[in-house]
Amino acid sequence: MKIPPVKGTRDFYPPDMAVRNFIIDGWKKVSLRNGFEEYDGPIFEYLKMFQIKSGDEIAEQLFSLKDRGGRELALRPEITPTLARMVNQQISSLPRPIKWFSVPRLFRAERPQRGRLREFFQWNIDIIGVEDVLADAEVIFTTVDYLQEVGLTPDDIVVKISSRKMLAAVLKEIGVPQKSLDSLYTVLDKKNKLPAEIFEKMLNEQLPDAEMADKVQEFMELKTIQQIENMFGRQEAFDELVNLMRYLDISGFGDYYRFDPAIVRGLAYYTGIVFEIYDKTSELRAIAAGGRYDNLLKEFGGPEITGTGMGMGDCVLEILLREKGLLKVKLPKRELDFFVAYVPNIIASEDKHGGSTPLEVADRLTWELRKKGRRTDHSFNRFASLTKQLKEAATRNAEKCIIIGSEFKNNELVVKDMATGKQDLIDLDKFLAQVKPKPK
Amino acid sequence: MKIPPVKGTRDFYPPDMAVRNFIIDGWKKVSLRNGFEEYDGPIFEYLKMFQIKSGDEIAEQLFSLKDRGGRELALRPEITPTLARMVNQQISSLPRPIKWFSVPRLFRAERPQRGRLREFFQWNIDIIGVEDVLADAEVIFTTVDYLQEVGLTPDDIVVKISSRKMLAAVLKEIGVPQKSLDSLYTVLDKKNKLPAEIFEKMLNEQLPDAEMADKVQEFMELKTIQQIENMFGRQEAFDELVNLMRYLDISGFGDYYRFDPAIVRGLAYYTGIVFEIYDKTSELRAIAAGGRYDNLLKEFGGPEITGTGMGMGDCVLEILLREKGLLKVKLPKRELDFFVAYVPNIIASEDKHGGSTPLEVADRLTWELRKKGRRTDHSFNRFASLTKQLKEAATRNAEKCIIIGSEFKNNELVVKDMATGKQDLIDLDKFLAQVKPKPK
Repeated sequence: MKIPPVKGTRDFYPPDMAVRNFIIDGWKKVSLRNGFEEYDGPIFEYLKMFQIKSGDEIAEQLFSLKDRGGRELALRPEITPTLARMVNQQISSLPRPIKWFSVPRLFRAERPQRGRLREFFQWNIDIIGVEDVLADAEVIFTTVDYLQEVGLTPDDIVVKISSRKMLAAVLKEIGVPQKSLDSLYTVLDKKNKLPAEIFEKMLNEQLPDAEMADKVQEFMELKTIQQIENMFGRQEAFDELVNLMRYLDISGFGDYYRFDPAIVRGLAYYTGIVFEIYDKTSELRAIAAGGRYDNLLKEFGGPEITGTGMGMGDCVLEILLREKGLLKVKLPKRELDFFVAYVPNIIASEDKHGGSTPLEVADRLTWELRKKGRRTDHSFNRFASLTKQLKEAATRNAEKCIIIGSEFKNNELVVKDMATGKQDLIDLDKFLAQVKPKPK
Repeated sequence: MKIPPVKGTRDFYPPDMAVRNFIIDGWKKVSLRNGFEEYDGPIFEYLKMFQIKSGDEIAEQLFSLKDRGGRELALRPEITPTLARMVNQQISSLPRPIKWFSVPRLFRAERPQRGRLREFFQWNIDIIGVEDVLADAEVIFTTVDYLQEVGLTPDDIVVKISSRKMLAAVLKEIGVPQKSLDSLYTVLDKKNKLPAEIFEKMLNEQLPDAEMADKVQEFMELKTIQQIENMFGRQEAFDELVNLMRYLDISGFGDYYRFDPAIVRGLAYYTGIVFEIYDKTSELRAIAAGGRYDNLLKEFGGPEITGTGMGMGDCVLEILLREKGLLKVKLPKRELDFFVAYVPNIIASEDKHGGSTPLEVADRLTWELRKKGRRTDHSFNRFASLTKQLKEAATRNAEKCIIIGSEFKNNELVVKDMATGKQDLIDLDKFLAQVKPKPK
């Protein structure tokens, strides 16, 4: 009985798994060196937990299930509610600041399309309990640190930065009533994501005063904070943004970011710095996005503690890395360090090896190399000719092939470099002494 | 609104995550050095896929859900059906042998208890397409390689080995009809898992002939293959087991295994070598188990290709490692390599640093250390006293604390070893030259 995989999920055969590991291992490495600690929660939580704060879009896309007691559960569509729950549970004992990362597997019951699947991985970093905009800066430059690490340059990507505080101050200046802000944000967020006419129509529905709507449009196209100051006057709310940019300049990532007042983020819960990262050439969705939230923990039953964070999915990123040819360059090249082959039917010297056959010597050597942490394998075809074994070494993409052959009567073996074809004869004990154990 | 986690799931706070990573990273490292390649499948598959071969127990414990089209799905309770599906899908193009491992997250809707949760991780290794018992040997010694790596000795654990082929030959010799074998296996599997009277009762129900039942019991208590030969005569089916043990002896793991005819494995699909690994002192369930299956791919719509594999869950393993004190010994000790502190209100030399404040110098240094792959952090409290910063360095468990203080006017910084308290004064450039980038 042949059953297919479910649409929108992925099978990770070894070459696909290598790509997934390359992406996720990089996320982990960069998080750790930037001082983040890893956490994770369960794959499913109570359904109602995901209905508290998620945008409507996410809440509609939940995979729900029931436990044996009939309680309603859901596969997590994002990790943020779990983060809030976990932090709230141990709020009084957790050392501050909380500087955490996670690489959760997430699920959304949406129609699969390019860059969007029903099951994906997302890198999340969050700093909780720090008011200073340095926290926002660290979130952004940890993100850019990763993107630079995988080979993306300021020619490839741009971090677009703005501030909800600045936006609120300007909208107030324009005359937009406080109570309209949240629903207006959802519209403004669409500016660069929808055709201009459709955006304008939505904006006019939201802001019936045509003059106000024009002002908002004008503002969103400004290029610098100076221009905004010229138009709307200097506001205290701008300071944070100026400080953020100074931190980014010091970190050496000045070339990667751009102030862009059209960055809003759709979700209601952002309260400060917001950012989105895009590739410069293609038509992909955002590679990553994030910002500051002040009320998240409170909404999940905790205290009012500020936080700032970022999320980056693996699907869009993988498409981009592939388009730029970076996967080819960056993926590990070799599957095996050593392939141990032997010449069948050679009688080993009894003096040195207690009558062991070359096969037994090869098996022991395989074992010793593995013990030293070297990826080592051999043929399972115990009667294969040397030619066949060498072919298998090439298929397995081994760096070196060790051959136990006639020279072995002198305790020597052949080490063949599979890239150059060069062969060296070396004493077995010397060879083993040369191969240093891999650091743990 | 405060919502609890679902019973039987785990929250992985950073200290718990460190344990999970320690276990899983070890599984991965040992798999790779033994020549296995990693794969994974989706978290959910079509429900009916898990109903094909899973034992009744597993099929009863499925978490089922529906997609938006109403199709019945289930969270995977094991990876084997996915493995069979994936191999069958690409059977003609996959290079042989298929030597794969995976560390899937699995789900069973059972009552949570010690060593059994609703959500857990399981290490799986499989070799598909190799008849030679060397494949079974590699599965066993890769498993033991891991257990030895984490510090478990032959005093702690034992690999109990037997063979379904041998069992079938002996049962035939005793006179058990071929058609009763599968249901008898399920009973025999319980021998060491149930009280003797209950097992005897079950056996007698299954085998009404009391003489036969006695013979079976007698056989299951034998200690060596020689004893079995003496009792039932030499059988060809024993050869495999003898060869397996020879391979295990060559690999240097001779002390870890024991032949035990009471090892049967409950599932019907095992056809050759079977094994279970137990700890010697406590009352835990099996740490790991596995064996050879000849018809698995076929049951999932593929060709008849033999395979052999092993599964090890994280829950029982973690309990055992904790009981033995091995987690304490083996877990990485330090969270940070460097904590960068600075003395507030010191004016930096304008000549050397272009008027940078110590804070800016500290920020840049933090950044350069991270770029070199060192886990580096600093205080988010920009006005903290040096004493406070040093306290934070200790809380964060940093190996070294760098202090940018008054010596910095001579371009020097203090490097404090947080374990010994020793302080060294060193030139900034020299220090940076000393810190080598971490290998990728």
